[in-house]
Amino acid sequence: MKFRISGTGLYIPPKVETSADISTLIGESEDWIIEKSGVRERRVSEIDVDEMGAVAGKKALHDRQPDLIINASGVPKQTIPDTSVFYQKEMGFKGIPSFTIHSTCLSFITALHTAGSLLQSNAYSKILIISSERGTRGRNFNEPESASLLGDGAAAVLVEPSPNSNQSEMLYFNMKTWPSGAHLTEVRGGGTSKHPQDKDTTYEDNLFTMDGPSIYKIARKQVYKMMIKTLKETGLEKGQIDWVIPHQASGKAIEAYISSGGFEKEKVINILPQFGNCVAASVPMALSIAIQDNRIKRGDLVLLIGTGAGLSAACCLIRY
Amino acid sequence: MKFRISGTGLYIPPKVETSADISTLIGESEDWIIEKSGVRERRVSEIDVDEMGAVAGKKALHDRQPDLIINASGVPKQTIPDTSVFYQKEMGFKGIPSFTIHSTCLSFITALHTAGSLLQSNAYSKILIISSERGTRGRNFNEPESASLLGDGAAAVLVEPSPNSNQSEMLYFNMKTWPSGAHLTEVRGGGTSKHPQDKDTTYEDNLFTMDGPSIYKIARKQVYKMMIKTLKETGLEKGQIDWVIPHQASGKAIEAYISSGGFEKEKVINILPQFGNCVAASVPMALSIAIQDNRIKRGDLVLLIGTGAGLSAACCLIRY
Repeated sequence: MKFRISGTGLYIPPKVETSADISTLIGESEDWIIEKSGVRERRVSEIDVDEMGAVAGKKALHDRQPDLIINASGVPKQTIPDTSVFYQKEMGFKGIPSFTIHSTCLSFITALHTAGSLLQSNAYSKILIISSERGTRGRNFNEPESASLLGDGAAAVLVEPSPNSNQSEMLYFNMKTWPSGAHLTEVRGGGTSKHPQDKDTTYEDNLFTMDGPSIYKIARKQVYKMMIKTLKETGLEKGQIDWVIPHQASGKAIEAYISSGGFEKEKVINILPQFGNCVAASVPMALSIAIQDNRIKRGDLVLLIGTGAGLSAACCLIRY
Repeated sequence: MKFRISGTGLYIPPKVETSADISTLIGESEDWIIEKSGVRERRVSEIDVDEMGAVAGKKALHDRQPDLIINASGVPKQTIPDTSVFYQKEMGFKGIPSFTIHSTCLSFITALHTAGSLLQSNAYSKILIISSERGTRGRNFNEPESASLLGDGAAAVLVEPSPNSNQSEMLYFNMKTWPSGAHLTEVRGGGTSKHPQDKDTTYEDNLFTMDGPSIYKIARKQVYKMMIKTLKETGLEKGQIDWVIPHQASGKAIEAYISSGGFEKEKVINILPQFGNCVAASVPMALSIAIQDNRIKRGDLVLLIGTGAGLSAACCLIRY
């Protein structure tokens, strides 16, 4: 698929919450939090996901107007309408088709692949993808490990067809979902199953819960297999991949791309210590940051990869 | 886009609720309900959206296995993971990529267009789209008109590339979203905005609310414009469209395709009196029913069209 990322935008909430700040809430020491999660500090947004996403979207657009807006986030602003509508409202546009793609933490990777397909079939020509998350709203402080991971942030990318002279493309995409792991990462409320009107819906049902160790056990093996398959199918050597952008699931998960994956530490973009796990926004935030600080340059091969609730794994290899 | 619908499946919940049954709950007479909404009876599901969707999905598959599962529904089973994962679990599959496309009542039309694009770019070859809704869970009986509209149901379609000898295709797609109408149809809860943990989140915030008359006023004009544009861009006359499948928004909305739209009554598929407004499942339910009872035949031109929360309007013209 020949397309290029022509703009990136970020919204980094100004309010910083250190692991020292939340140690009493979580009932664990600052050191425990940093060691378990890898997160030293995270941002806590005081504006909602639509406003956050609109700021990032506007920056990615540089005064241009998209012809499609995709929300690619794990948690919505509200059940109906979907969040893409509210981004459009905040950005001051009207009439632009808007919808949501949701595969939890992998929403951005799924949306980028789908956008590539929509561009290739000439359905659209300027697609704005926005991931905006306020995971701190759903923290369960009785679950110290997951509560210490989550942070807030938003990122947006504008994608357009590549001019013929431009090498930008998506070389490979793969996704797998194993529903046996559906209950390893959940927010059980918010839908028809544990409806707020049901008497047996608990407070905790509306909060984020994750069985980190069980996910890590499955994810490490499956993501490794996916990485090997990506190299095999594209005929590339590991050393030819310029950058790895993992979902910022946890310090341990990112470390595995170096220790097990065999990538050089400098090539693996790691924003977790500063921002925590920002659900679907983690991948586009890491991508946008590394583009904006000139680490990622035009022509570089970039592997976006990770796992999400489902349990799903996905990756895509792009030439920026 | 050359692709064909190769299978359809339905789940019609067995429990029937007549407008007489709910007249006391709603505080209006049976006649008032039927006149206002056009709904004589609706189904009420006693199983959740994932089980409903899996039954429809299995029927559409005819013992085959898809290589992508898309959930195209307005309301999820739960916030995380997305409902596609739970369909896969109920159908007994594993490893199949799964995600959600959400544009409320237009989710199926959006997903069908997106699936067409993914098939055209050879990303997938057998895509199962499932829409499953349990709108009766979110009825607000203090809002008689919207409460009398909602019903439960699920439908699924399998889409595959068309063989060269086959004429099946999507000839046209269009979508527009006007966020000035975002608050005309809402479930305000279920996300970061009116979180269940917030003290000011009310019981009603988690229920469906709709300003029917205001939507009708905008929708009628915009959908008419979209219909005229579809004919103009495809070079077709109204009389060449074999079937119109409107979103089953309300009796009045469906009637407008005949009175204002100028389509013959027999060509406009209307399942509203029996099933009510099944949110995103309405369009694929009406499509599947009309295919299964042999009204829609191979080669027929079928216009899927409607409005959804957003406010959005979308249509696609397919040759079945």
